[in-house]
Amino acid sequence: MGRWQPDSQGRLEQAALALYSERGFENTTVAEIAAHAGLTERTFFRHFADKREVLFWGAPMLEGLMVSAVEAAPASAAPIDAVAAALEATGPLLEERRDSARQRQRIIDANADLRERELVKLASLAGALAGALRRRGVGEPAATLTAEAGIAVFRVAFARWVSDPKSRDLPQLIRDSLGELQAVTARR
Amino acid sequence: MGRWQPDSQGRLEQAALALYSERGFENTTVAEIAAHAGLTERTFFRHFADKREVLFWGAPMLEGLMVSAVEAAPASAAPIDAVAAALEATGPLLEERRDSARQRQRIIDANADLRERELVKLASLAGALAGALRRRGVGEPAATLTAEAGIAVFRVAFARWVSDPKSRDLPQLIRDSLGELQAVTARR
Repeated sequence: MGRWQPDSQGRLEQAALALYSERGFENTTVAEIAAHAGLTERTFFRHFADKREVLFWGAPMLEGLMVSAVEAAPASAAPIDAVAAALEATGPLLEERRDSARQRQRIIDANADLRERELVKLASLAGALAGALRRRGVGEPAATLTAEAGIAVFRVAFARWVSDPKSRDLPQLIRDSLGELQAVTARR
Repeated sequence: MGRWQPDSQGRLEQAALALYSERGFENTTVAEIAAHAGLTERTFFRHFADKREVLFWGAPMLEGLMVSAVEAAPASAAPIDAVAAALEATGPLLEERRDSARQRQRIIDANADLRERELVKLASLAGALAGALRRRGVGEPAATLTAEAGIAVFRVAFARWVSDPKSRDLPQLIRDSLGELQAVTARR
């Protein structure tokens, strides 16, 4: 441990994803993750509060990206277009981490507690988007409905993106899903 | 306890809602709920697995109601109209329990674990609606998007209904919210 080690957070994350995939989240300890990464438990806890946090540390960053994109949308943009811009803004970050994202999703899908945590994260994301829309002057319930619809679009697009290695890129899947939402909810 | 007691489940529920409202969910014990209802703990556990279950026992019934309504919708009904029918079908049951529903919502809003449980319940409801749509021949992702949009509409309508004692009835609020969702997602 005496040598300088670049990116211990990234190494801990890779080690955790590998062990969670191999043994299951519940059967993996922090000590094992640290050992697998060639680091100490002390270092682990400098980066993550607990072993669940390894899977969710990116959530505030994602939320910040989305909220900034809503804020940056032109004043003339309709609420749904501001939300679409927010969802698409996550593309570059997530595309770059596609393999980890796919591995992470399989780990979450296999564990009820992690699925609950993911739902809480998505609900918080919807709340943050609704708040950003209200600050643009969008009233209620339009702000909440637009944000919730946006998160539904994101979930569907994300699920297709992680489950199909050959799928189109995430921003394109988001645009497709939004188009499908607009088709299924269209007034006749 | 020797006398015949009608509806011990209803009495336990009323006692639990009263105590959760007064002292907080976390500060109330099953023994206190049973005593407040004039019943034994043993009777409590005949009706509910634990004190959280008092707040969520109705969920499978609600889900059953919604799924049946989707199944009963005319074959010619568009997916969103089948979902709207499912949401409105909950009206009579919920209108009848409006005071309990309002009390229950305040208890849930005050406790992070209960809010998580509510999210899980709503996600399960969305999953059941999507399944019912697929059995009508609706493809993916249309089924999931329609179901998720429906649950967003339901949440918004339900929140208005429980927070405003003078609000319109629930089916009307559901129709209003669906109209607003259609307006915010409309293609321009």
